[in-house]
Amino acid sequence: MSTPKLSTRPLKGTRDFYPEDMRLRNWFFGKIREALELCAFEEYNGPMLEPLEIYAAKSGVELASEQTYNFTDRGGRELSIRPEMTPTVARMVAARINELTFPLRWYSVQNFYRYERPQRGRLREFWQINADIFGSDSYEADFEIISVAINLLRIFGADESMFRVHINNRRLFGDVIASVAKTDAEGVKAISKVIDRREKIERVEYENELRMLGLGDAEITKIDSLYSMSLDEIISLCPDSKGAAELGELFRTLEATGLSKYCVFDFGIIRGLDYYTGTVFEVFDLAPENNRAMFGGGRYDNLVGLFVERNDISGVGFGLGDVTLENFLRTHNLIPDLGGRTLVLVTRFDDVPYEKYTAILSNLRNAGIAAMIFFGSKKLGKQLEYASKAGCTHAIIMGAGELAGGVVKIKDLGTREEQVVEYSRIAKYFGK
Amino acid sequence: MSTPKLSTRPLKGTRDFYPEDMRLRNWFFGKIREALELCAFEEYNGPMLEPLEIYAAKSGVELASEQTYNFTDRGGRELSIRPEMTPTVARMVAARINELTFPLRWYSVQNFYRYERPQRGRLREFWQINADIFGSDSYEADFEIISVAINLLRIFGADESMFRVHINNRRLFGDVIASVAKTDAEGVKAISKVIDRREKIERVEYENELRMLGLGDAEITKIDSLYSMSLDEIISLCPDSKGAAELGELFRTLEATGLSKYCVFDFGIIRGLDYYTGTVFEVFDLAPENNRAMFGGGRYDNLVGLFVERNDISGVGFGLGDVTLENFLRTHNLIPDLGGRTLVLVTRFDDVPYEKYTAILSNLRNAGIAAMIFFGSKKLGKQLEYASKAGCTHAIIMGAGELAGGVVKIKDLGTREEQVVEYSRIAKYFGK
Repeated sequence: MSTPKLSTRPLKGTRDFYPEDMRLRNWFFGKIREALELCAFEEYNGPMLEPLEIYAAKSGVELASEQTYNFTDRGGRELSIRPEMTPTVARMVAARINELTFPLRWYSVQNFYRYERPQRGRLREFWQINADIFGSDSYEADFEIISVAINLLRIFGADESMFRVHINNRRLFGDVIASVAKTDAEGVKAISKVIDRREKIERVEYENELRMLGLGDAEITKIDSLYSMSLDEIISLCPDSKGAAELGELFRTLEATGLSKYCVFDFGIIRGLDYYTGTVFEVFDLAPENNRAMFGGGRYDNLVGLFVERNDISGVGFGLGDVTLENFLRTHNLIPDLGGRTLVLVTRFDDVPYEKYTAILSNLRNAGIAAMIFFGSKKLGKQLEYASKAGCTHAIIMGAGELAGGVVKIKDLGTREEQVVEYSRIAKYFGK
Repeated sequence: MSTPKLSTRPLKGTRDFYPEDMRLRNWFFGKIREALELCAFEEYNGPMLEPLEIYAAKSGVELASEQTYNFTDRGGRELSIRPEMTPTVARMVAARINELTFPLRWYSVQNFYRYERPQRGRLREFWQINADIFGSDSYEADFEIISVAINLLRIFGADESMFRVHINNRRLFGDVIASVAKTDAEGVKAISKVIDRREKIERVEYENELRMLGLGDAEITKIDSLYSMSLDEIISLCPDSKGAAELGELFRTLEATGLSKYCVFDFGIIRGLDYYTGTVFEVFDLAPENNRAMFGGGRYDNLVGLFVERNDISGVGFGLGDVTLENFLRTHNLIPDLGGRTLVLVTRFDDVPYEKYTAILSNLRNAGIAAMIFFGSKKLGKQLEYASKAGCTHAIIMGAGELAGGVVKIKDLGTREEQVVEYSRIAKYFGK
């Protein structure tokens, strides 16, 4: 009795899903799966472990090492526990590039690991839905992805008072910055890195960094003014930008399809600097107590090109995590009562053969009614007590007398009422 | 264009699940989930990473290190990627031991990693169903677990010609060996280790090892004879063994419930030596080309005791892997055609506003019909070609003429027949 006991707690940043937690996760992921299948997305899955190099090739070794669980296996391979899905799916698309029919519409629901400081909304193990369209350059694919993202919140009953999709375009963003700062692509990249941290650093630091990149007061003021401009005003700065055309068409279509009430143009949305190339978006929770970006996505080019000699397969997609989704649903009271299914306990007496009870059990299960049998021999009162504690809605009671009469008693554990039911009509009692 | 390309292959021993693979896995795990829910099992889930010590505590450091992916994280913690579910579920049960209602009936469907030499039926990443009952010592829980295991194959249409459950009892096994070899628990353990390798080592080596443990020719011959004895004959050797009573009751109940045709007593079934304590079983595929143990399980005690001061919570359960299940289903032709769902492509012309098409798309999806829209502008022939390649069953065609007339054309891509359908009756056409 003196062996020291092991900790019962899950690793920091990971979670145990007890049946009630799992019921919730299965419910919301189930609804999302169903909605994505109706939108003609097909589910795929990849391995939990990948070579570190596929993350390094996408994000650079430093970034890929920073928050990723990496280790060397017995064969000397440098491996990562996947921190995200995109490199895996790009690899899978590349592997069958000549057999697949594009555009592809794929989704997955999987767990990921990141070595982060655990905090509200951020855990080390999380689950994420990833949905992507590969092989269409059209703004229509961007529209489809954004409308699917909106739909995934609407199926839970969320409306425009609860969330807003902030949309920008990286091509337009780059062209506008280039024209304001009179610089080239390299210059835009350097400036963007500073601008991206605009809300996170002190104003004086922000201005200093921009000055070090050659910007004067006029340009800095001009950049400030971009953030209060309407989409039309921004577009008028670079009317010939391909990004202007894409974003214009996208907003026109959102308007025409009644989705614009969920959306807003936001020049401040940039997202992964080295990654996104066209439309980018982030979905914000509008609840004052939870006001934050819940998830986002956008268009990226050439990821498939890391694996094969092709540069014509671009992708557009998003990733939605279980923790943020659950926070959102809780904040807006969008989680219904998930109990409510029928669950029957078959109770037993010692003077009736056991197989008489297992026959009832099989009949219930075959009729589609969830059922279990009491193990061991205890007084009926104890068996009914267990039934209630274990979440059963009904108990079936059959003593020698009932058995002889071809009936059972069915007790409703909610109302405590008992009813005598013919043996052959048990399933009927439960509406089956 | 000269950057060296990354490999498109998944890590050795892991698999990519393309949509057709995923459809298969979702189909068989979906059926199993449904069956387990009807048997009143509840789904739980645990983290992919656990402290190495929980595997070491169960199986010893050596065994826990041998085939497990272990590494040290940035916080200096020794972690394992889970190679099995039992330590996690024991930890979870222990953590809420005072709140949970026993017996518990829990299942999970998760992926696991083992560093094995990849071969038929054995991969480094595999998926597994685990189902367990915690907190009942009764043979009835053993019976329930075995009948659930049988049921999980029967729901796919498998019958007694396709599989057989080989059953033994570790308590009975130990008592019989003790009586034959006239030894104590330590002696039984040493002898069992040799006997367990009976089929794997040379006969002369087998006999030598037993002689080194003090057995003579008479005992060795006697042990040989055990393997051809019936259950009654074995029980008659140790009629007072608790294991004899358990196994007797179990087989009596299998007989009375009509399940004995799926089952056979097999003194050769031992399973994990330091782990199982009562009933043990293995399910064999009877197909000559695939004759092997597919999965198994049994009763284990005191795992929860690694975490909390309790020794009264025993468990009985089994684990069934996706690879062996798929092999079994394929071998016996039990996989139906998994296609067959309706999938509609909404085609488009440039002279009709885009939102007229997205309206059709929304209506289809809202009616529960999977649908997508063609991206970009191509000739109708090209759009229909894409539809067929992408697995669509129908295409909706609406030019300016149809739009004006309030109709669409629906083309069945199987029969190539077209039908003009009123706009308001599109869902009806698809039976919705």
